[in-house]
Amino acid sequence: MLPVFGHLNPDTDAVTSALVYARLLSRQGVEAQAYRLGELNFETPFVLREAGLEAPPLLPVLAAGTEVALVDHNESAQSVPNLAELVVTRVVDHHKLGDLTTSQPPYLRFEPVGCTGTILLGLHREAGLKVEPTDARLMLSAILSDTLHFRSPTTTQADRDAVEFLAPVAGVQDVEAYALAMFAAKSDLGDTPADQLLRMDYKVFPFGDAAQPQRWGLGVIETTNPAYVFGRQAELLAAMDKAKAEDGLNGVLLSVIDILNETNRTLILSATEDKAVSEAFGVASQNQVADLGHLISRKKQIVPTLEAHFAPVS
Amino acid sequence: MLPVFGHLNPDTDAVTSALVYARLLSRQGVEAQAYRLGELNFETPFVLREAGLEAPPLLPVLAAGTEVALVDHNESAQSVPNLAELVVTRVVDHHKLGDLTTSQPPYLRFEPVGCTGTILLGLHREAGLKVEPTDARLMLSAILSDTLHFRSPTTTQADRDAVEFLAPVAGVQDVEAYALAMFAAKSDLGDTPADQLLRMDYKVFPFGDAAQPQRWGLGVIETTNPAYVFGRQAELLAAMDKAKAEDGLNGVLLSVIDILNETNRTLILSATEDKAVSEAFGVASQNQVADLGHLISRKKQIVPTLEAHFAPVS
Repeated sequence: MLPVFGHLNPDTDAVTSALVYARLLSRQGVEAQAYRLGELNFETPFVLREAGLEAPPLLPVLAAGTEVALVDHNESAQSVPNLAELVVTRVVDHHKLGDLTTSQPPYLRFEPVGCTGTILLGLHREAGLKVEPTDARLMLSAILSDTLHFRSPTTTQADRDAVEFLAPVAGVQDVEAYALAMFAAKSDLGDTPADQLLRMDYKVFPFGDAAQPQRWGLGVIETTNPAYVFGRQAELLAAMDKAKAEDGLNGVLLSVIDILNETNRTLILSATEDKAVSEAFGVASQNQVADLGHLISRKKQIVPTLEAHFAPVS
Repeated sequence: MLPVFGHLNPDTDAVTSALVYARLLSRQGVEAQAYRLGELNFETPFVLREAGLEAPPLLPVLAAGTEVALVDHNESAQSVPNLAELVVTRVVDHHKLGDLTTSQPPYLRFEPVGCTGTILLGLHREAGLKVEPTDARLMLSAILSDTLHFRSPTTTQADRDAVEFLAPVAGVQDVEAYALAMFAAKSDLGDTPADQLLRMDYKVFPFGDAAQPQRWGLGVIETTNPAYVFGRQAELLAAMDKAKAEDGLNGVLLSVIDILNETNRTLILSATEDKAVSEAFGVASQNQVADLGHLISRKKQIVPTLEAHFAPVS
């Protein structure tokens, strides 16, 4: 039974892609089981409820040598802690290729599209398999989530085509209304502790080289209600400070993405983060907030810019 | 114009896959051009002649930042020397994943099959593109070459199915006769200098970890006439000694694969190689030859065994 899982601090794509890929593999004769690597955010339970599904179980500790399939990630910093001891036989992903290596030829399927769900739809087509309504809803939701319903610069024509195909199969007649309901669910943060808000969509990235290694924690809160988030700015900065110390990081940023206006205002913890952001993005912070304008994609805009900033001068 | 190229010391799969993938990309609206990273072996000119094609040109030096597509390899030690400065946007490969990283999401297509040609046939099908007879012949030849016409343990059902589909499209009626003609061309080594024989299908692999790094050169001569090769054993050992010094390697092995009998007798240069081979494979050498039995796949048998042998004890 091949375990299939997405990244730590799972988002909708990480969870739904594990479910969809595990089912696709099983239909192709590879017995597979979906897992998750952490608590769900506030959007994914809405999606699962609409699809009539339970959340996949938390991944148990796997014995060294266990074969696994990764979806929606490939870097060890975003995966299960003992990834190096496991045997990665399959990866379906739409992120840059990080530190993954394998000792045998793997099955890798990376495409530079907005969402793993878009790639998974392609895998169904190539296998000549009919897309089931539940799987269609999961892939549709993941694409709308990852691309912020096509607002993100990560969106590609393949994502738009996939949504056009999937919506009727999933029985979703008004895609925009469904997406807004998803985003509202995601934005209903209630009295969630600040620690948890920070970790909801949070990834650690290595930058620099071996001589000057940097590890940064980059959190994102995508919301239709940014005022709520900034109302809790002091708490969130305290949570960032704690995360930085606990994870032994060089810096922590928390980007608050206004989904509907497509803007990014990023919380700046200390002079270290202020220096990096002002040098990398040419933006000075005010009251510990840096206005990063329309740079709303961590993957396509924030990470590459920081990567270039910290790259060794050659 | 996207450059597409296979590995150093190109074999038939490296050359034909560059040609086929470049043409496939061009048909899909991505202007691409095939190149090679070195001199052809003795099999590939036969294949190109039968296909009515010229060899692709040698890759010129590419400026830093140039986008490239790799076929049939992904490790920097087997690629163009300045690979780290280039931007790898696409890889189609059937080897283990090595030290490749990217700064943007790439298009990666790895499958654990016997030949890149088999994956490329899949790409044609998925794109709904008719396979042209010339491309069919190139993919067919690559699969027969890489799998030694299904004799290699790297062979999968997908490779067999691909050959069954491609042979009639290519106009090859007797596949076994065509494969034997290819192997005869490959075995007609004439008065090729020993240096060149060693380098014909030769790859450098990193083993061990950062604390005890090892770099080994692993050459393969696949031939229907091993007696000819062993008749030049002294010359070949001298060429191995030279390569070891020139490339600053820890060890060099040259495996002579008898295609028709599916056996591997490997030349052992010195006590270092003898120790590693006898410990890793449990085979003592005699007269500087180790009989590795039916271990005829460098990728699937020789490299993983050496990798495990040199792996740090954890």
